[in-house]
Amino acid sequence: MQLPDIIKNAVEALTKLPGVGEKTAFRMVLSMTRWRGSELQQVGEALIHLQDLSFCKECGVFCNDNICDICSSENRQTERSLCVVESVSDLMAIERSGQFKGLYHILGGVLNPLLGVGPDELRLNDLEERIKRREIAEIILAVNPSVEGDATCAYIRSLIDESVRVERIGFGVPMGGSLEYLDSMTITKALENRKKF
Amino acid sequence: MQLPDIIKNAVEALTKLPGVGEKTAFRMVLSMTRWRGSELQQVGEALIHLQDLSFCKECGVFCNDNICDICSSENRQTERSLCVVESVSDLMAIERSGQFKGLYHILGGVLNPLLGVGPDELRLNDLEERIKRREIAEIILAVNPSVEGDATCAYIRSLIDESVRVERIGFGVPMGGSLEYLDSMTITKALENRKKF
Repeated sequence: MQLPDIIKNAVEALTKLPGVGEKTAFRMVLSMTRWRGSELQQVGEALIHLQDLSFCKECGVFCNDNICDICSSENRQTERSLCVVESVSDLMAIERSGQFKGLYHILGGVLNPLLGVGPDELRLNDLEERIKRREIAEIILAVNPSVEGDATCAYIRSLIDESVRVERIGFGVPMGGSLEYLDSMTITKALENRKKF
Repeated sequence: MQLPDIIKNAVEALTKLPGVGEKTAFRMVLSMTRWRGSELQQVGEALIHLQDLSFCKECGVFCNDNICDICSSENRQTERSLCVVESVSDLMAIERSGQFKGLYHILGGVLNPLLGVGPDELRLNDLEERIKRREIAEIILAVNPSVEGDATCAYIRSLIDESVRVERIGFGVPMGGSLEYLDSMTITKALENRKKF
């Protein structure tokens, strides 16, 4: 059976979404063929409108104006603490914990020479300027543990003035984790990072 | 953190897709915020264009013209056999097997009084007319086994002239299946449907 081009195009478009393969996309499209025109219009337009999204000039998170509510908050600024994260989802994970009260800076990835991601591809240029202007005293590198993440942290440390305290988030056994099932790298880190009890 | 309306709308729109909850939709939208405008435009338009899809006047499958290539095929018509299925995906599953050479008829669901699906909601009106016009001699009810499916089959049998042979697809142990893991209903059906060996 020959599939109509309209179906093929929709399937192809949806396979670009993360976690959606050809089979899932086809199932989605099949279900959408039973939708009303207005519903299809609504979904399509909602996705097209994503290009009108504006990003915070300070931290890089998406927001309604030029500055997000975190960067414009007085309380957040007085902390003089800046948390560097890879992505919006990492920022949101930290916000969910409710433990950090300072400002954020989204890199938009980590250095990865193999994939052609150098310092210019990350939001690093305005980091130094921001640290000076906001009088940041403490930087928390909440970059995920990986070879690329470690390199990115080392690079950021080299950029920043020695007077600023730079710290990286702790690595070890996660809450609810079981040593039995953890990988050797995590256990190595947990042993390294042990604390007086 | 307050999410921009553009993000909220896109997440809400995507949760309407089958198998996509709020978390998955949000992950999709987060990834789409990194897309180029032209890519977003392409996906949005591909979905909007789904409303321009035309359906075969005969069997009800989506197609490029008024009649799909199965219904317009000479070879398919000479078989005088009609396979009644619930949905396009069921039709495609049978086509993949390559074992059926006749025509199809898509019901668009099964009778379900609790969900308000009566005979008028299914594509049943033109079924009788089609059987006469196409001189169908054999009907295969490839409706999935369920209380509603059984009722739908009984209703279709009552609609159709006694001279037409009406058969339902076989139920039993699936290929590669193991009795150990099968439910009692399937084993009951398999025992009922035993054949001389």
